[in-house]
Amino acid sequence: MEVHVKQNQTAREEQQENRARMLISCPDGPGIVATVSRFLFEHGANIVQSDQYTMNPAGGMFFMRVEFDLPELSKNLPALERDFQAVGDQFKMEWTINQVSRKKRLAIFVSKEDHCLVELLWHWQAGDLDADIAMVISNHNDMRSYVESFGIPFHHIPVTADTKKEAEQKQLEVIGSDIDLIVLARYMQIISPLFIEHFRNRIINIHHSFLPAFVGGKPYAQAYNRGVKIIGATAHYVTEELDGGPIIEQDVQRVSHSDNVNELKRIGRTIERVVLARAVEWHTEDRVLVHQNKTVVFN
Amino acid sequence: MEVHVKQNQTAREEQQENRARMLISCPDGPGIVATVSRFLFEHGANIVQSDQYTMNPAGGMFFMRVEFDLPELSKNLPALERDFQAVGDQFKMEWTINQVSRKKRLAIFVSKEDHCLVELLWHWQAGDLDADIAMVISNHNDMRSYVESFGIPFHHIPVTADTKKEAEQKQLEVIGSDIDLIVLARYMQIISPLFIEHFRNRIINIHHSFLPAFVGGKPYAQAYNRGVKIIGATAHYVTEELDGGPIIEQDVQRVSHSDNVNELKRIGRTIERVVLARAVEWHTEDRVLVHQNKTVVFN
Amino acid sequence: MEVHVKQNQTAREEQQENRARMLISCPDGPGIVATVSRFLFEHGANIVQSDQYTMNPAGGMFFMRVEFDLPELSKNLPALERDFQAVGDQFKMEWTINQVSRKKRLAIFVSKEDHCLVELLWHWQAGDLDADIAMVISNHNDMRSYVESFGIPFHHIPVTADTKKEAEQKQLEVIGSDIDLIVLARYMQIISPLFIEHFRNRIINIHHSFLPAFVGGKPYAQAYNRGVKIIGATAHYVTEELDGGPIIEQDVQRVSHSDNVNELKRIGRTIERVVLARAVEWHTEDRVLVHQNKTVVFN
Amino acid sequence: MEVHVKQNQTAREEQQENRARMLISCPDGPGIVATVSRFLFEHGANIVQSDQYTMNPAGGMFFMRVEFDLPELSKNLPALERDFQAVGDQFKMEWTINQVSRKKRLAIFVSKEDHCLVELLWHWQAGDLDADIAMVISNHNDMRSYVESFGIPFHHIPVTADTKKEAEQKQLEVIGSDIDLIVLARYMQIISPLFIEHFRNRIINIHHSFLPAFVGGKPYAQAYNRGVKIIGATAHYVTEELDGGPIIEQDVQRVSHSDNVNELKRIGRTIERVVLARAVEWHTEDRVLVHQNKTVVFN
Repeated sequence: MEVHVKQNQTAREEQQENRARMLISCPDGPGIVATVSRFLFEHGANIVQSDQYTMNPAGGMFFMRVEFDLPELSKNLPALERDFQAVGDQFKMEWTINQVSRKKRLAIFVSKEDHCLVELLWHWQAGDLDADIAMVISNHNDMRSYVESFGIPFHHIPVTADTKKEAEQKQLEVIGSDIDLIVLARYMQIISPLFIEHFRNRIINIHHSFLPAFVGGKPYAQAYNRGVKIIGATAHYVTEELDGGPIIEQDVQRVSHSDNVNELKRIGRTIERVVLARAVEWHTEDRVLVHQNKTVVFN
Repeated sequence: MEVHVKQNQTAREEQQENRARMLISCPDGPGIVATVSRFLFEHGANIVQSDQYTMNPAGGMFFMRVEFDLPELSKNLPALERDFQAVGDQFKMEWTINQVSRKKRLAIFVSKEDHCLVELLWHWQAGDLDADIAMVISNHNDMRSYVESFGIPFHHIPVTADTKKEAEQKQLEVIGSDIDLIVLARYMQIISPLFIEHFRNRIINIHHSFLPAFVGGKPYAQAYNRGVKIIGATAHYVTEELDGGPIIEQDVQRVSHSDNVNELKRIGRTIERVVLARAVEWHTEDRVLVHQNKTVVFN
Repeated sequence: MEVHVKQNQTAREEQQENRARMLISCPDGPGIVATVSRFLFEHGANIVQSDQYTMNPAGGMFFMRVEFDLPELSKNLPALERDFQAVGDQFKMEWTINQVSRKKRLAIFVSKEDHCLVELLWHWQAGDLDADIAMVISNHNDMRSYVESFGIPFHHIPVTADTKKEAEQKQLEVIGSDIDLIVLARYMQIISPLFIEHFRNRIINIHHSFLPAFVGGKPYAQAYNRGVKIIGATAHYVTEELDGGPIIEQDVQRVSHSDNVNELKRIGRTIERVVLARAVEWHTEDRVLVHQNKTVVFN
Repeated sequence: MEVHVKQNQTAREEQQENRARMLISCPDGPGIVATVSRFLFEHGANIVQSDQYTMNPAGGMFFMRVEFDLPELSKNLPALERDFQAVGDQFKMEWTINQVSRKKRLAIFVSKEDHCLVELLWHWQAGDLDADIAMVISNHNDMRSYVESFGIPFHHIPVTADTKKEAEQKQLEVIGSDIDLIVLARYMQIISPLFIEHFRNRIINIHHSFLPAFVGGKPYAQAYNRGVKIIGATAHYVTEELDGGPIIEQDVQRVSHSDNVNELKRIGRTIERVVLARAVEWHTEDRVLVHQNKTVVFN
């Protein structure tokens, strides 16, 4: 297993050493694709994959994701970024360029339900999640030994109604300054606006319903009481509105009248972990752009 | 095509001549299955299919559907029903027995969108919908010639805010006393409580969203604005609460950020017609029992 | 209904008057996207949608689909095509540019099963299938009146083992020279290599199984006998190898032990018509490129 | 986590202490359901769930699964079984009655791919797989520490072309006489007919394709080469015919031209583990009956 993972990673790493991903959002207008692709060509970059989407041909927003190879990327990227500034300004772009070899660093938050954490660790261990899991933070101590057996630091930060503010402060300290993404893997605490502000569009939550149905607590009980024939799960970025942030991914499973709440939970667990894993992978691969309360997902 | 349909129907009709379906709802208790199956056996009936479901083994509700063959059914059913009265009373059952050969009579309500009507007529013509389509009622006259080309009576009953009450009165007159099921095949008018009372649990509506998400008008626009990644449709019995009645069937389809409202509508049309057709078929085959605001579907 | 269709079509037609779609296949190499997008920009075209795919970054094939608007397209397209010749030659491209307003002309072949034909006509009538249905050809006369009620010419060309060659000759005569796509909508005759040669990658067949499982006749009986838990349908381009051509689209539906062959057929019909309709729509919208025995579908 | 599992188990165990499951296969005939349910009622048993299926009303096979509660089950079951012998003989039944509290004992075979094993252990640990995992047998030693961390015995039995016979002999010794089910969780060795004979309809394999497509080795490479748009996995009982045994469960996932073989494998892993877990759960809950080369699954 050890060997298997390493082989996958080595192959991937060689391929990715000189690869970068560019994400662009801007008002639509003529010539953007032409300008960007010509710019990259003239700077010696080879476009491997390019996706774009225009929300509305007349006066809407334009979104683009370009994956490209550039010889000696680490050495040459700063110059390319400096030169691209002019292009970005011309089209009023928000843009970023990420080196693929610079893996994103994740902090996973978890409470007592372990299935989403187990899934993410399994994807990570199998070499399918191209990120570093920098730490796991939990308001319970139950999963310490499991997490630490992977060599991942585990921080137990209890949260009560009274200590919520201090707990978040402690979380921020532990997280420090080099975490790219926070994953709420069935973390059963509401995140404060202050905390969200630190990680705008960088906190992914898994909600155990097919949003916008069954916002809030006990969604499986709500689903059972409504008598739905299909249940689902939703991965979304966390905003100040409870379960109201931009949706990244959803999936569903058929159920029947004979499934009680416990069975809905059991079926739902598999949906939740698959949906969360997809959303996290897409984010780490720079496939998700956020515009207002919606996502553009290039996958 | 003519020939094909007739063959299907003939084979089915022979098989079904002596077949009946019994539906039972009652408080759960020991010995129900044993009593019912023994009763049928002793009356010369052969059980072809039997399904049951107990909502909760201790003190819940019990639901049962039995399909059985009885020699000379038409002649012998009245005596069997009379004798079953004692069993029904013993267990406080609500029960019905339907002859399969006595097809249910449907009235389809439609406005301007034709896809659900087209679907039902296609299933009916293909011999897959085992019911009689007795009439189509519409608040517009657009589909008259299409409907009449199938030999089905078409009634144009306009509805405005002012004439709603009279229109419903006229609908009831046209429907008369021998319609078993009303199907709202994208009929864009709200049904009054008075009308609903006439057809309790016998009006099926197709709502063009994955309920309970996006209740009310313009659900595809709502779905687009919320940025969902999956859309759906829901067939449900109509109650006094708008889009709140017992759900019979739902289905969904994956969409992406690049699908605008018109594309959601287009994708949705195929979900709507499939979901509505399934719900209508299940109802006509006595597969749906209603308890409070939920359905038990034996399929 | 009449009005509804026309409104859709008018809106679409205005939008599409100056729109074109370019399809490119060529060996991969640096600078293709940059060169094409720069070319279009310099010729006054605005890229509305661009998709590309490289089969293998090192030495594989490159595929591209560009949707663009060009003012006064009809007048300006010939010059643009003439100028693009140099780009095409430089990268050894196979390329085509289609005016969106120039709808593709379809000939639909059908035998006795009508569901796929009904579906295509419904999509077409609803304004969702952006093509002209120029004619329906059948080896049976059953559907003449149905087809003619849409104002579509119907040609009855009987086929027997002995007359097959003559029948195909007659089909080719009826088809003439301005048909873009032949759709085998459950046409139960094998097409000869000679006929296929006339319409290479322009004959779409619907096979009623999840290929490559259950090639050949009676796939639902084969599926029943194997006891599969999911059945499917496959739309593919017709090649000389029976049911072996490039797959455009597939879909599936869950079944159970209790579904007999007739029920598999019934369930399958809905899969077949949905899958075929999607494949035909994608082809008519220039979304499908064929390479060897596989398709690239930009959707 | 520890606590959570135990609570689930305790609640389940109390409920199941007096619960049994009866499985019946026999030629169809009148009165079977009536006789069985009357028998159970007269012996003081309360039917909790009853499912049956007749392959063909006239002269086919009949299958039944009854879940029932009997006071003091352990004490009273032997007498009930003795008395039922007469019923079984009357209808030429194959029948078994299993105490739910007597959990099935599993031996899991695995090679180098760990995802199916991880899944089964996660379901087991979460209290969702109602069975005992008695041992893991592998032809490699890689997963020893992982398996042993759950307190499950791990047996490393290497297999080469030359030592196959001895290896199977050793496996049989290790397995002993009290294993109910063998699960091949991506065990990449072909099982000999001799071994199969010991565990007829008690070896479940997961094949990484949508059978009967892509029998044998490298199914994902086969799927890629054929250009399918959907991939799948199949759980089946192992018979002497390679990948040809009775199918228990299948599921699928949509893919596209842009997914290479490695990506198909990655997507497939999630299908495989879900499908295998379902099949194993259904088998352990006595939901699967085998008739010839097909399964009847009551779920």
